[in-house]
Amino acid sequence: MRLGPGAEFDLIRRFVPDRVRHPNVRVGPGDDCAVVSADGIAVSTDMSVEGTHFRREWLSPNEIGWRATAAALSDLAAVAARPIGVLASLALPEQDAGGFAEELMGGVRAAAEQQGGVLVGGDLARTAGPVVVDIVVLGECPRPVLRSGARRGDELWVTGELGGAAVAARALLQSTQPDPGARERFARPAPRIHEALWLAERGVPRAMLDLSDGLGGDAAHLAAASGVAVVIELEQLPLHPAATVQDGLSGGEDYELCFAARPGSVAPHTAGFQDRFGLRLTRVGGIEDGAGVWQSNRRGGREPVGVGGFQHFAAPPRRLR
Amino acid sequence: MRLGPGAEFDLIRRFVPDRVRHPNVRVGPGDDCAVVSADGIAVSTDMSVEGTHFRREWLSPNEIGWRATAAALSDLAAVAARPIGVLASLALPEQDAGGFAEELMGGVRAAAEQQGGVLVGGDLARTAGPVVVDIVVLGECPRPVLRSGARRGDELWVTGELGGAAVAARALLQSTQPDPGARERFARPAPRIHEALWLAERGVPRAMLDLSDGLGGDAAHLAAASGVAVVIELEQLPLHPAATVQDGLSGGEDYELCFAARPGSVAPHTAGFQDRFGLRLTRVGGIEDGAGVWQSNRRGGREPVGVGGFQHFAAPPRRLR
Repeated sequence: MRLGPGAEFDLIRRFVPDRVRHPNVRVGPGDDCAVVSADGIAVSTDMSVEGTHFRREWLSPNEIGWRATAAALSDLAAVAARPIGVLASLALPEQDAGGFAEELMGGVRAAAEQQGGVLVGGDLARTAGPVVVDIVVLGECPRPVLRSGARRGDELWVTGELGGAAVAARALLQSTQPDPGARERFARPAPRIHEALWLAERGVPRAMLDLSDGLGGDAAHLAAASGVAVVIELEQLPLHPAATVQDGLSGGEDYELCFAARPGSVAPHTAGFQDRFGLRLTRVGGIEDGAGVWQSNRRGGREPVGVGGFQHFAAPPRRLR
Repeated sequence: MRLGPGAEFDLIRRFVPDRVRHPNVRVGPGDDCAVVSADGIAVSTDMSVEGTHFRREWLSPNEIGWRATAAALSDLAAVAARPIGVLASLALPEQDAGGFAEELMGGVRAAAEQQGGVLVGGDLARTAGPVVVDIVVLGECPRPVLRSGARRGDELWVTGELGGAAVAARALLQSTQPDPGARERFARPAPRIHEALWLAERGVPRAMLDLSDGLGGDAAHLAAASGVAVVIELEQLPLHPAATVQDGLSGGEDYELCFAARPGSVAPHTAGFQDRFGLRLTRVGGIEDGAGVWQSNRRGGREPVGVGGFQHFAAPPRRLR
């Protein structure tokens, strides 16, 4: 289990086996999805808890369901899997088992169907506590793109813009009206399934993941899995108009893709990608020997990300989220 | 979605599509597992909530993890699937993210590995409420045994003994010491994976499910899915020594198998099954024309289960659990 730093990941390291042996498991724990069966079936699960991941004052029930499902589908995008089915498990207070649950499930179905998946199962449970939504996604994935394929000299690229969801979350936390575009990024994130499949069909990404915890934290997973250092050029980050560099680095839940690719292999595709998806591809750094995540400095060297004011995912350790 | 009666199932009916269309979905919602991919990959998810499904005073953290995992694996048994992988999503209060979580995950891993599965992923989330454990199971299932295959004239059979878990739950609710054997049934249920595979290899079950809600309630799902009536012979129920007929009918969480089979097709295998697994196979009724679940009466007729004192799963409707 080669994951980046953080309290959540320390806990995962403590109770997940380092290596699993099963003839039908192609990819075990530690990547965005597990992949089972000779055919390649990718599976991932993503849990959203009221009060931790969302608040009812911020989102409609439909948006709560959409967002939880989009977050899970984004893990399929990260390995270049095509959605098949979604399962939704809900823990619900008794009073929410009616219209609230129905609207939430409407959001789950809509997000799944927009990406070509169908609702195939789930579970319902009563709780005396906050609403919990756990979404399981299944996808076809004959050739998974893993976190571990980055090599020295590769370029690091991201899709779209970063920091939009963080801008909205900050406004909502301060009880102010978020920028509508940023709110949309927060409330109805778009998993980059088609984008990932398009890139993978062209053999572009050597290693890939989705940005759920912010580029800084997620790049650390890619670095750990590939046994390399990731160097980010902060001035290149494609930021949402209202976002700061720190939003782009440490603001989570953008659900854009981040991938490593051979030098020069992405540039021929950027215009086609933009035409097809209306979305930018931006080179934000590169892969070097070493470990961890760094930022390039003006003297042509590198310094640890986190030293220059981005303490969010350095010490003190990130809290379990 | 042909499910039996109950508030939980009414809710499920409201938000799950009647029929799903996806080239890679072989079995959609409404059975014990969904089955995807040409190879046949069965998937199911089972959510356990502190205060609803378990209490910490009753179970060790290891048992909480084991029990949640066994319940999910039992859905694989119900379709005759061989376990591949398990994913565990936990919502945890901050103070439980240490030793408690580690012991719980030890129980998850032990239950999975005992049945030939490996832990391949999951998620962690912080909650201000009760612990929630959602377990996803994946299994190989080239030829799923569904709930819908029962036909008029078939016999209805169950594995093992019924009511043990209900006996333990009642004692625990009354703050008395449960019978040790009954407690074991409650705390460390044994999913009948190998038993299901053994029976399916011999072509015995035409329709099957696992007993998670009690024979009365679960038989109603089989009846609805197959478009038949299930008639139970109460005097035949293989009860745990301390269980009543009502425990056997309406006490959940025994995780035994219940299946319909052609007349005379099971009897040749009962001795071999007993030898192999140390477990009884018992004929408990049959399949007739009609709908719903009935009990045979002394006059050779039938009356609805629930009229004779088994109101637990008749009106008023079962609460969401």
